[in-house]
Amino acid sequence: MLKTMAKYPSTLAQLIAFLKKLPGVGTKTAERFAFQLLNWQESDLHALSTLCAQLKKKITKCPDCHCLTDNEVCPFCHQAMRDKAQLCIIASPRDAYSIEETGAYRGLYHVLGGLLSPLDGKTPEHLHLDQLKKRITTLQIKEIIIALDSTLEGDTTALFLKEQIQEWGLPVSRLAFGIPIGSSLDFVDGSTLARALTGRQTF
Amino acid sequence: MLKTMAKYPSTLAQLIAFLKKLPGVGTKTAERFAFQLLNWQESDLHALSTLCAQLKKKITKCPDCHCLTDNEVCPFCHQAMRDKAQLCIIASPRDAYSIEETGAYRGLYHVLGGLLSPLDGKTPEHLHLDQLKKRITTLQIKEIIIALDSTLEGDTTALFLKEQIQEWGLPVSRLAFGIPIGSSLDFVDGSTLARALTGRQTF
Repeated sequence: MLKTMAKYPSTLAQLIAFLKKLPGVGTKTAERFAFQLLNWQESDLHALSTLCAQLKKKITKCPDCHCLTDNEVCPFCHQAMRDKAQLCIIASPRDAYSIEETGAYRGLYHVLGGLLSPLDGKTPEHLHLDQLKKRITTLQIKEIIIALDSTLEGDTTALFLKEQIQEWGLPVSRLAFGIPIGSSLDFVDGSTLARALTGRQTF
Repeated sequence: MLKTMAKYPSTLAQLIAFLKKLPGVGTKTAERFAFQLLNWQESDLHALSTLCAQLKKKITKCPDCHCLTDNEVCPFCHQAMRDKAQLCIIASPRDAYSIEETGAYRGLYHVLGGLLSPLDGKTPEHLHLDQLKKRITTLQIKEIIIALDSTLEGDTTALFLKEQIQEWGLPVSRLAFGIPIGSSLDFVDGSTLARALTGRQTF
């Protein structure tokens, strides 16, 4: 084997290194992306460049619910037709959009900014909990829905929140666990099936 | 279903639209990428922005072989230890890096800039053929290797090139087709196996 391998031009190599930081993108994919970008029109590359540079300046977090906004006004907190007695607790701003897409919820949101994970140093102080309490009293929330992942961290955080919210005397529910819609029982794993059995509903 | 769905902030929506233009990236992946970019440090986002803006200015194509370069000097044409009697014909600049990585070739390259595809309007005029002929005489090339895809377009282009090069009286070979290394016969498709049989080598 001769080792006289030519390297990518340094701008390209740097671009590949940055693209590799995207989730699920390895060297091969980052290379494909970079070579594709080389074929883009100059105007598109400039638009992408401007978007990247301005991203953090243009998009801020609502000081109340911590959802994303590019406005003075948060699209969730300040929408007239929303039910201001319901509060849905989510881990990250992205979850709000997933829930919005269902069209099944029209209350308010509260972004925790993460999940409890003591081993990674994520303790209750790192979540927006003080503000949660403040909002619950100010907004006179009547019902709380916990919409967190079904993972170890999600479960821990949900349990922790449940105790807190029950102390404040409010009804609290969590998203249902069970068989995904369109799925066959053959393909559902044991723990999901067990949760679906315990959570069975009168029919 | 209530249709009061909140939309992404416009900067984020625009970024997602651009990321969707990358190969193999759908809406879901583009959204994941965009939200990940939101979590990047300001300095990283600025570096990525600068790279995108400068990409086409910094990286140019060698006027001789059409490989990529960010220098006055092409890394392939002007490397002292290269065998200047061998020329490898490739479709795009990226292929040069794949071949370099093997360490099995140290000759020169010539990028065609595409493959023949009459239906898509890609005729011989669109490939860098005049220059190929010029380089072959100027550089006194002794051997030509065709390294093109094993697709309909790749085969057509290879056949076309073979006739041209034979007219110029030069020995021409094409990359071997056969069973990929590490692969079991069970998983090799019929046409590959047929090519491997026709191309069998004394052992």
